[in-house]
Amino acid sequence: MPSLLDAPASLPERIDALVGDDLRASMRIYDRELASANPVLADLLEHTARFRGKQLRPKLLLLSAAACGGVREEHRVLAAVVEMVHVATLLHDDVLDEADVRRHVATVNGRWNNESAVLFGDYLFTHAFHLAASLDTTHAARAIGAATNRVCEGELTQIAHRGDLSLDEATYFRIVDGKTAELTAVACSLGAAYADASQPEVAALETYGRRLGVAFQIADDLLDLSGHSAETGKTLGTDLQKQKLTLPLIRLLSTASPDDRGRIEQMLKHPNEATRTAIDPLLRQSDALSYAAGRASAEAAAAKAALEALLPTEAVALLEQSADAAVHRRR
Amino acid sequence: MPSLLDAPASLPERIDALVGDDLRASMRIYDRELASANPVLADLLEHTARFRGKQLRPKLLLLSAAACGGVREEHRVLAAVVEMVHVATLLHDDVLDEADVRRHVATVNGRWNNESAVLFGDYLFTHAFHLAASLDTTHAARAIGAATNRVCEGELTQIAHRGDLSLDEATYFRIVDGKTAELTAVACSLGAAYADASQPEVAALETYGRRLGVAFQIADDLLDLSGHSAETGKTLGTDLQKQKLTLPLIRLLSTASPDDRGRIEQMLKHPNEATRTAIDPLLRQSDALSYAAGRASAEAAAAKAALEALLPTEAVALLEQSADAAVHRRR
Repeated sequence: MPSLLDAPASLPERIDALVGDDLRASMRIYDRELASANPVLADLLEHTARFRGKQLRPKLLLLSAAACGGVREEHRVLAAVVEMVHVATLLHDDVLDEADVRRHVATVNGRWNNESAVLFGDYLFTHAFHLAASLDTTHAARAIGAATNRVCEGELTQIAHRGDLSLDEATYFRIVDGKTAELTAVACSLGAAYADASQPEVAALETYGRRLGVAFQIADDLLDLSGHSAETGKTLGTDLQKQKLTLPLIRLLSTASPDDRGRIEQMLKHPNEATRTAIDPLLRQSDALSYAAGRASAEAAAAKAALEALLPTEAVALLEQSADAAVHRRR
Repeated sequence: MPSLLDAPASLPERIDALVGDDLRASMRIYDRELASANPVLADLLEHTARFRGKQLRPKLLLLSAAACGGVREEHRVLAAVVEMVHVATLLHDDVLDEADVRRHVATVNGRWNNESAVLFGDYLFTHAFHLAASLDTTHAARAIGAATNRVCEGELTQIAHRGDLSLDEATYFRIVDGKTAELTAVACSLGAAYADASQPEVAALETYGRRLGVAFQIADDLLDLSGHSAETGKTLGTDLQKQKLTLPLIRLLSTASPDDRGRIEQMLKHPNEATRTAIDPLLRQSDALSYAAGRASAEAAAAKAALEALLPTEAVALLEQSADAAVHRRR
């Protein structure tokens, strides 16, 4: 019988071996920063602790630090900051998406109400900034401030284009660059900057984080269209319901025959619970899913290429594999 | 015919003479920080520029600076920051209150949608932090971070007590201390701190700002119950509609006969458009309105008393009068 020790370690296991202790320390900072004697907050915090998911952004930050010389206390603090910003945007997204379930758990707006979700999201935002400002210099607070400015701009552009069936790829990528890639980019660049990396290394990791973020978002869009909610753990088809045009749909519309295009537009204009099922055969007959998957892979490849500026350490190997994992995932 | 020059200058005129140029410079910083080439944002910014109201918080910050030695460039930046935080909370409050009109202008959620109001509020929050972090040290970013943490906590406590007809005065004052007084307190203390004031002066101005904030909020609660929307420029009676128990109502319930209390509770439990009119005679027969007005005056007096730690300059005189104006106002 082969020993478990003989099995090659999985990516999560290798990440845990390298930065797991730092990640756990960072989540203790997260909990300590948010803790409140206020019973209302204690209740919300206990509930949302169950959302804790992939922790992609703190992992990217810590791996970037490790790739540039090592993790310091500032990195653990900043890993908590980027996770806090991310969870804040999730809470506000759930209000916007009217989603009821996230990671198999009722959302705050589903269990409490929209008001609590908006204010609790604000609470996470303000604590993220407060924590970023706890470091010695203003560098991190400025970087987090600038990145979150662009995240909001991306989200606002997305909302403005809701129901816009003529949304083009360029606008789609501009939205994604803001709403998703900006935060993964700043996570990686802060990881590098606080490890005293050289300017080219900081720039390389920022590019890595940005391209990985785009790859991740396209994969997310694909899952929303063709995933299974039992696996993803969240309400699916919400992009369709909210008339949010994602890359596969943009591709589908731009390559469909005029007749098909008319039919698809009618479906997208009046979405209901059956829309995802109805649109599925059209997606599968077209190249839309493979085209989007190809674009995601190209972004992951660009992310990995950026890592060539760094010494080939275990941390860099794990960043490379994380780029691949971002596009080949179930949730 | 008496010359206009003979008329005693009003409080707004005297404030304008002392810090008007600084205030206008600060609003230019505000506009520059938020400006965006994005047409969605340009549209939202143009619309919400019309909300620009009393600018109480930036004025308090600049007057506090003037009271402690003079206004510097940091003060103009920070005046923009506190106004940005305030407008962000207004935008999110309007979502929470489902208000349609603010300062005679349609609210963002009324004219666009809740999503835009949430995200645009986030955009103002992140820019406020970004701007606070643009100063040389982390002092302002930390202070703004800590204050906004408490603002959110106050708002969340308020939401949790919505419909709670047994809300007591102590909890009411704790909510107000967070949601309103925290921001006026930090405005005044930053005004002092960035003028190199002594620690007792910073503390005195923080107390002034805090007590003034409480006075201001009680006056606001009174206006929501008994004001005229033509004067206040916003949807009135929203506290009743959202089952938000304010000081006059807490007093009314705690002093009513058991029979009246039962009738009032029924009205508050099932609010409708006629509730404000129906409750009005009960309020006027009780001491609830005068009791709340008395508490507001006492807070204003405490605010003014704190100013005794400062040299009696024109700036201090204007802060004193601002405390009185906070409780004697129509909007």
